[in-house]
Amino acid sequence: MMPFVQMPKGFLATGVNCGVRRYRPDIGIIKSETPCVAAGTFTTNTFKAAPVLYNMSLLPSDSVRALVVNSGHANAATGEQGLKDNLEFAQHTAETLGLRQSEILVASTGVVGERLPLQKLIPALPQAVRAFSDTINNFALAIMTTDLVPKFGSETFEIQGKTVTVAACAKGSGMIHPNMATMLGFVVSDALVSKDVLQKVLREVSDETFNMISVDGETSTNDMVLALSNGQSGVNVDSGDAYKLFKQAVLKVCRDLAISVARDGEGASKLITVIVEGSADLKLAREAARLITTSPLIKSAVHGEDPNWGRILVRLGQAGVPTDWFENIEIRLQDVTVFKDGSPQAFDRPAARQALQADHVTIRCTLGNGPHSATAWGCDLTKRYVEINTEYS
Amino acid sequence: MMPFVQMPKGFLATGVNCGVRRYRPDIGIIKSETPCVAAGTFTTNTFKAAPVLYNMSLLPSDSVRALVVNSGHANAATGEQGLKDNLEFAQHTAETLGLRQSEILVASTGVVGERLPLQKLIPALPQAVRAFSDTINNFALAIMTTDLVPKFGSETFEIQGKTVTVAACAKGSGMIHPNMATMLGFVVSDALVSKDVLQKVLREVSDETFNMISVDGETSTNDMVLALSNGQSGVNVDSGDAYKLFKQAVLKVCRDLAISVARDGEGASKLITVIVEGSADLKLAREAARLITTSPLIKSAVHGEDPNWGRILVRLGQAGVPTDWFENIEIRLQDVTVFKDGSPQAFDRPAARQALQADHVTIRCTLGNGPHSATAWGCDLTKRYVEINTEYS
Repeated sequence: MMPFVQMPKGFLATGVNCGVRRYRPDIGIIKSETPCVAAGTFTTNTFKAAPVLYNMSLLPSDSVRALVVNSGHANAATGEQGLKDNLEFAQHTAETLGLRQSEILVASTGVVGERLPLQKLIPALPQAVRAFSDTINNFALAIMTTDLVPKFGSETFEIQGKTVTVAACAKGSGMIHPNMATMLGFVVSDALVSKDVLQKVLREVSDETFNMISVDGETSTNDMVLALSNGQSGVNVDSGDAYKLFKQAVLKVCRDLAISVARDGEGASKLITVIVEGSADLKLAREAARLITTSPLIKSAVHGEDPNWGRILVRLGQAGVPTDWFENIEIRLQDVTVFKDGSPQAFDRPAARQALQADHVTIRCTLGNGPHSATAWGCDLTKRYVEINTEYS
Repeated sequence: MMPFVQMPKGFLATGVNCGVRRYRPDIGIIKSETPCVAAGTFTTNTFKAAPVLYNMSLLPSDSVRALVVNSGHANAATGEQGLKDNLEFAQHTAETLGLRQSEILVASTGVVGERLPLQKLIPALPQAVRAFSDTINNFALAIMTTDLVPKFGSETFEIQGKTVTVAACAKGSGMIHPNMATMLGFVVSDALVSKDVLQKVLREVSDETFNMISVDGETSTNDMVLALSNGQSGVNVDSGDAYKLFKQAVLKVCRDLAISVARDGEGASKLITVIVEGSADLKLAREAARLITTSPLIKSAVHGEDPNWGRILVRLGQAGVPTDWFENIEIRLQDVTVFKDGSPQAFDRPAARQALQADHVTIRCTLGNGPHSATAWGCDLTKRYVEINTEYS
């Protein structure tokens, strides 16, 4: 049974089937009793899908009341018609909920280049409303495409005798159905927060979590993470200890979701965590960690449980690690040191191979004694990935 | 039988087995009777292998007499010892040829992190000298690692009643043996050319050829292309028509070799040519073409003979094609137009699928009516790629 995750105070969520999928929920709504502060981070792909452009025009905001999501159709590469369809979807959702269209955010995920199936989505809205509950579970199911598992979680913290809840939900990384647009994330909280602070927290947390995962190096047209906060906990988190606790809670739920997305990567059999530490340069640490997670050679070696450190070193060089840092570089696979002080280390190869049999492999690269570190997550490359993506559209 | 390719006037080449491989040639030398102008382009990986650093310190030059190459060991990630080993290899090669060490260039390809096997290489030098001939063929075999076919060719042109020959040879793209450092290219000519012009031609040609291929997005520590020209044709190609003909000949041989490397990509069953044209920006056209060749989703779709244009559009957006160019975009798969004027086109899907059954697939993207175009080459992604790279080191 799926563990139930409670929505923050004043939030309801729903997910029902509108007929795009055969049985599974494929339309979901989150709504708040009261207006929310809302923030978003969006794909850097220049061909942004209609719902991405729509949300970007509304955010940041302090008057969002709901967000509606459909899965199966990305409403990307659909031009002017796509923008009209998206607006119609928002309008009908608003009417059904008794709200104004400008209070509604929209996300879509699925096939690129086909119109939104409004004839299925609109009639399903009243059913969705009837299924509102105070858990996130059915919403989490409704946003899945080829994900093997739903991805959701929550964190709470107490301060001033009050409880703040942060719940979040994501989908991503499956592409069995071709042309999928991939990563969506939603964070809802009852913290009292200004839109600027919420935007800042979301951007900083996204940079450390969702922006540090990769399944195949593809940047989708629909990627976005949205955050809503309705203040109903009565705890102002704009500064001080409350700010720290809030950011920590958002970071924790988002990191867990990001890791779930990487672990559920297409065809993946292993989660790979790459830690690059001791860097004098944060950007370089992030770039190096990401390049290691996107290397098809390293992904294949991990799949083959092969302690192939040379491929990691090559990728650090590709990231632009300065030549004079070389003599300080240390590389560890799980707990086995394979490279140190710029030199290959004698290591127990069978033991290293055995350590790599785990379903979670950690690669740790120390670049020196600089203050910056970065962590990225990915997955191994398997024949199943190729199978999934050579299937017919 | 391999077609024989004649070396340019005054050049000899050789390739013999020194015992790193079981039987196949694994050490090769090209030498010129007279001093050569020499130029090089080198990997951007910051952890450059010892022979790369050595050649960079000598080039451009007008007094190079020979280059020696070994396959099986990359002499990368080998530190100070690697530089010493490389120098010793150059010194012994010079002595054997009766030359000075500073007249010798060196290239290595193979496993990262192991020392050069000088105890095998040095005793083989006299044998290599005895095997000098005026064809490039054995040299082309000696530089192979996991390449399935040797890659070499030549072009000649006539001007002022004289003949100029450009011969070239490359290896690359196999990585069955782990930690391989990949791409090497050698261009030799009897044109009379200044080192600055040779360097300029090599850089410009490399940008259009070797720098536009990708098998898996990995930038090796050992990549380099070297050009030697000894002037024995008596034709000065520094300017005018002779310059144009010379550059065209270098471009032709290098393009053919680059395409061979892409076609021989690990596990590949199809060559993919991507043409991005009508761009107002050359850099963007190149970036977009390369991003399409490196997309695991597009590579998988081509392997599955799936006319999946959405993945191509997503990649154009990831490359940063401006939003307002969207309505001019046209995408053709082989001869089938699948996207035009910013809209999906109705097309005959079975016919498109059939067209994609060819072993050479061309993807053509028109971005508008700008003056710039770029061509990139890659290969499909197959289960064999994963098999090759999960094998144990």
